[in-house]
Amino acid sequence: MSEKIKIIILGASGYTGAELLRLLLPHPYVEIVGLSAERNAGHRVAEVFPHLGIYDLPALVHIDELDFSKADLVFCALPHGTTQAVIAGLPKHLRVVDLSADFRLRDPQLYAQWYGHEHQALALQREAVYGLTELHRAEIKSARLVANPGCYPTASSLPLIPLLKQKLIETDGIIIDAKSGVSGAGRAVKQNYLYSEVTGGMSAYGVANHRHTPEIEQILADASGRPLRVTFTPHLIPMARGMMATVYTRLRPGKTVAEARAALRAAYDAEPFVHILPEGHLPATHHVAASNHVHISLVPGAVEGQVILLSVIDNLVKGASGQAIQNMNLMYGFDETLALTQAAVFP
Amino acid sequence: MSEKIKIIILGASGYTGAELLRLLLPHPYVEIVGLSAERNAGHRVAEVFPHLGIYDLPALVHIDELDFSKADLVFCALPHGTTQAVIAGLPKHLRVVDLSADFRLRDPQLYAQWYGHEHQALALQREAVYGLTELHRAEIKSARLVANPGCYPTASSLPLIPLLKQKLIETDGIIIDAKSGVSGAGRAVKQNYLYSEVTGGMSAYGVANHRHTPEIEQILADASGRPLRVTFTPHLIPMARGMMATVYTRLRPGKTVAEARAALRAAYDAEPFVHILPEGHLPATHHVAASNHVHISLVPGAVEGQVILLSVIDNLVKGASGQAIQNMNLMYGFDETLALTQAAVFP
Amino acid sequence: MSEKIKIIILGASGYTGAELLRLLLPHPYVEIVGLSAERNAGHRVAEVFPHLGIYDLPALVHIDELDFSKADLVFCALPHGTTQAVIAGLPKHLRVVDLSADFRLRDPQLYAQWYGHEHQALALQREAVYGLTELHRAEIKSARLVANPGCYPTASSLPLIPLLKQKLIETDGIIIDAKSGVSGAGRAVKQNYLYSEVTGGMSAYGVANHRHTPEIEQILADASGRPLRVTFTPHLIPMARGMMATVYTRLRPGKTVAEARAALRAAYDAEPFVHILPEGHLPATHHVAASNHVHISLVPGAVEGQVILLSVIDNLVKGASGQAIQNMNLMYGFDETLALTQAAVFP
Amino acid sequence: MSEKIKIIILGASGYTGAELLRLLLPHPYVEIVGLSAERNAGHRVAEVFPHLGIYDLPALVHIDELDFSKADLVFCALPHGTTQAVIAGLPKHLRVVDLSADFRLRDPQLYAQWYGHEHQALALQREAVYGLTELHRAEIKSARLVANPGCYPTASSLPLIPLLKQKLIETDGIIIDAKSGVSGAGRAVKQNYLYSEVTGGMSAYGVANHRHTPEIEQILADASGRPLRVTFTPHLIPMARGMMATVYTRLRPGKTVAEARAALRAAYDAEPFVHILPEGHLPATHHVAASNHVHISLVPGAVEGQVILLSVIDNLVKGASGQAIQNMNLMYGFDETLALTQAAVFP
Repeated sequence: MSEKIKIIILGASGYTGAELLRLLLPHPYVEIVGLSAERNAGHRVAEVFPHLGIYDLPALVHIDELDFSKADLVFCALPHGTTQAVIAGLPKHLRVVDLSADFRLRDPQLYAQWYGHEHQALALQREAVYGLTELHRAEIKSARLVANPGCYPTASSLPLIPLLKQKLIETDGIIIDAKSGVSGAGRAVKQNYLYSEVTGGMSAYGVANHRHTPEIEQILADASGRPLRVTFTPHLIPMARGMMATVYTRLRPGKTVAEARAALRAAYDAEPFVHILPEGHLPATHHVAASNHVHISLVPGAVEGQVILLSVIDNLVKGASGQAIQNMNLMYGFDETLALTQAAVFP
Repeated sequence: MSEKIKIIILGASGYTGAELLRLLLPHPYVEIVGLSAERNAGHRVAEVFPHLGIYDLPALVHIDELDFSKADLVFCALPHGTTQAVIAGLPKHLRVVDLSADFRLRDPQLYAQWYGHEHQALALQREAVYGLTELHRAEIKSARLVANPGCYPTASSLPLIPLLKQKLIETDGIIIDAKSGVSGAGRAVKQNYLYSEVTGGMSAYGVANHRHTPEIEQILADASGRPLRVTFTPHLIPMARGMMATVYTRLRPGKTVAEARAALRAAYDAEPFVHILPEGHLPATHHVAASNHVHISLVPGAVEGQVILLSVIDNLVKGASGQAIQNMNLMYGFDETLALTQAAVFP
Repeated sequence: MSEKIKIIILGASGYTGAELLRLLLPHPYVEIVGLSAERNAGHRVAEVFPHLGIYDLPALVHIDELDFSKADLVFCALPHGTTQAVIAGLPKHLRVVDLSADFRLRDPQLYAQWYGHEHQALALQREAVYGLTELHRAEIKSARLVANPGCYPTASSLPLIPLLKQKLIETDGIIIDAKSGVSGAGRAVKQNYLYSEVTGGMSAYGVANHRHTPEIEQILADASGRPLRVTFTPHLIPMARGMMATVYTRLRPGKTVAEARAALRAAYDAEPFVHILPEGHLPATHHVAASNHVHISLVPGAVEGQVILLSVIDNLVKGASGQAIQNMNLMYGFDETLALTQAAVFP
Repeated sequence: MSEKIKIIILGASGYTGAELLRLLLPHPYVEIVGLSAERNAGHRVAEVFPHLGIYDLPALVHIDELDFSKADLVFCALPHGTTQAVIAGLPKHLRVVDLSADFRLRDPQLYAQWYGHEHQALALQREAVYGLTELHRAEIKSARLVANPGCYPTASSLPLIPLLKQKLIETDGIIIDAKSGVSGAGRAVKQNYLYSEVTGGMSAYGVANHRHTPEIEQILADASGRPLRVTFTPHLIPMARGMMATVYTRLRPGKTVAEARAALRAAYDAEPFVHILPEGHLPATHHVAASNHVHISLVPGAVEGQVILLSVIDNLVKGASGQAIQNMNLMYGFDETLALTQAAVFP
């Protein structure tokens, strides 16, 4: 471990880019050698992120000004759609963790249906390993290209996977009522995300047509061994960070709440970042803020056979940059928790 | 209409008390003649609510210092549990709009089960009219005692009632995922509701055991003509005001989304405060803030037969004090919308 | 008063436009006959402001599609700089309340210095009456063109004017440390005003060079009878509405705190919207939110001879649209408080 | 360094206690051996701070249940007033970093005047070293008892000290207009600090009589070599963390802005946590959130000779627990920045 791996971040002037920097700066085995930002090319990091101004970091440049020859790994934090062409054009010696949605869906038809255009890098898509760390640890270790999961899929599927794998709950009728902080929308400058439009109120959006739906269904289909459909309703909450998924499920005949709880505990007992809360405790996004942790509760519904799962993450950490680093750690044989062990920031 | 009705507010130093005052002050046919506040007795309104300090209002006194003999109507904004004894002790010439939960549940056993003690004023409970204005307009007009609905029951049931009445949706399996601003918890001084504990994060609470559940079930049972159970999950959102109910339902066999939408429109077309949003529009709590309006959307789910209803109110207005005044207007033959026509405050 | 005055709002899709609509809708003597919004022309009000969607309002059109011939008064809520040409081109029978900064500074050189270009409508500028209602009531009544004051100048100068007029405080060394909610920046879509950039933190901006400085100095020079310079430091606070000015002054030799307090009380005792708080009470922006009221406190400093003035307004109401309507009421001989008597919304 | 120092935290269930834990957990040379919390004695840390529930920490106990004999250092995060008796009663082998105000004022008369009672541990007060790290590094290293500075004094005095030491600014007439997030008030359960009372608005408090005033004056008197008085006005801002001091000063005759800027840079150039921002950049509390950093700007005022200093800290880190750990690091000869190098959390 005498030598540090050399990292390039594409799209470093967005929130996931900033979060990668914040988390990677204290990482002992990483050196950041290049940062791209199309609109902010030519600026220093201090100008787009004053909180990072005190660190010695490369200036932001256009992607074609970067010297990839000396880099080992690229974190790609570019917008959906433009990413696939960029990654297809990168030198093949590079390993890549892609935070966009471009390589998450295995089915090209599904991709075309939800994203409105044919996928431009199908070979890469086939090569890509889906980076939900707790589910695909082995494949991630040897992956060249990791498709880092979306925030909603991460929060929603972690509590469901063990129950589906163990065939404890029905595969139909799963309802995911999800709530996200505003940073999930990125740093895009849109009227909807202005402070005065958001503060003091909440709204639903993308009801029944949010693009994270097929990604969630893909994960859950893998876990249950059969295709399934979920109901997924995202809401925008007046907070910068944080995400909660409230998931409504029904036990299969003969299965019990105790079995469901035991399956959850068994699945995550040894996991460093996924925590099943004690009975009677309900999760709050505060308690995972700025951390890579996931808190999950299971509550029996008032209606017979119903099980309610509640799950919280920080959408920028476990929902994006933290999980990306967790995957990088795996890819290079580092301790998986390196640079990710900070406690949540509360209050 | 030459004479104004004389109003007393019990529990005037809480948020629903303040909201009653804010809304009643410009009401042309109302005179506020008494205000009680146990802990704040002896203080002027300006001391507990500086924003009301410029108005000429009675001082806050102990309830037994009030002269009820000259009053016409009492708004009771006291805590649950203590209310029933207080109202039982009031002179019988008074009409009462009670904002607590004490008279909402018709079934005394259900009351005892959820509130942990026998009801202390069963005769009054039988007399009480449930004050969901749009549903019980006729009975409210002649009521002496109105049990003003809870905020969650108001937001949750308004979109469901027409669909249940028309037997368009299944009565089982209804899931209400509700989100509330913090003022719904009142002005109680508890650690959970401190600014630093709430801001920047959200949480679930009362999952599968919130006391508004039987109230919702009672309304919906009335609408559907048969008992039913619902799943009700409240969440605390970092905003002072506002409430959203996201309601998951399934169409009955043979019924269509178009029929459901038509039923909603038909039910509320003539209502001054309930508005069915145009197709494609989703509600936001901002758009009803500080107003008595309700915005409702119906969205077909991605899963066959599913219908998602979204409903927003201001929990302190249509969810409490506004609906109380709407009921008072009915009780005295005033225009139902008097003092309640203000547009929402946005941003 | 049998006939309503006919109103056109230019720039109706911004926050001050929305606030004009919210406040004017219940006004008994006003009819809104035209609304312009350049980028949103062709849309209904419901599309840009869903909270106003239930009202019967004209659609948004380009300014040159408006029929000014039947209008009586124009509220101009356009951006600074573009306003002067627009107003210069309006038919002369129209009365105008301009909410921009274009006609506030009397000195054309000062205008050119602070705004970076020569004023394009000097004749209009000479005609314009500065609309700080409490200071210029008589001139406003007969004005054709009212230059509605900025939010910072309104909040900052109201507590200072009586003390300067009475020569109780020094004219040099006045320091105004001001704090504003984010809606003061309008609905402009800029990265700085994104929710995630603003929430949970605060910042200073425009230190020693904010364009409201010469406007404040002009008001105070009028009050004191001699030119003066002030120190003005604005800060951006994570709240949608509200503005506070904390003003540091020194008593002139021989003058006392009691005299200063008496002067404040005397000046505003009969004013419907300006309230001097009782000794020991400090203002909070909450207590004037969504209202046209101003709360002012005077506190003797710990240092001999120092007097600290604190003043709060809602920047969108008394700081913009509310004062504009107050001026309109004066211009047409209506009760000055018409449509402006609502209590603040708290919490 | 083979052995870790053993730490006890008194008052661990408040916000500064939680922040000590968050920051100390990854510290390589520290072991937490005891935690007290009077009201929460008997509870696990997970119950009062769920975000710390995944760590292996001692349970919360009454202070008299703690075994001090094996501890090396005590962080005392108890309320003002009660602290002095507690510390006086601790075994003398312990080193103490006290986060209360009890040992900050050297002058017992001043203490009695501002705190309303005679000091109960004058010998200890004489022994205490004031823990503004950048100012008293040498004394802190060998101190047994460190009086950790208040948040306001830290934010306010850091920009002033170099200018006063170099006699560049006048000692009279300094005005500090300060703004604090709500966590500065601690976790005390008071109506003023309820979410619904704070969100969406701001207020001033303690104008001309806040207890941090004499502490600031003591620091500045030390720096300038003569007694002085300041004007200090704190404001409560709707954010959980963060503090800004906007400081108004006047240059002494013949002194220049350039000299002032040079003095600031010279004083803090080698400091790991104090950063003078480049000309034209203004500080924002976001950029130091959850970090031990201080950002300072100097801006020439519009008025001749005036210099405006702006300074931001996180009140819970550099304003409390972070500086306490910085002092602990010094006291034990650790690298002063150990466990304190995290970047700010943004957004």
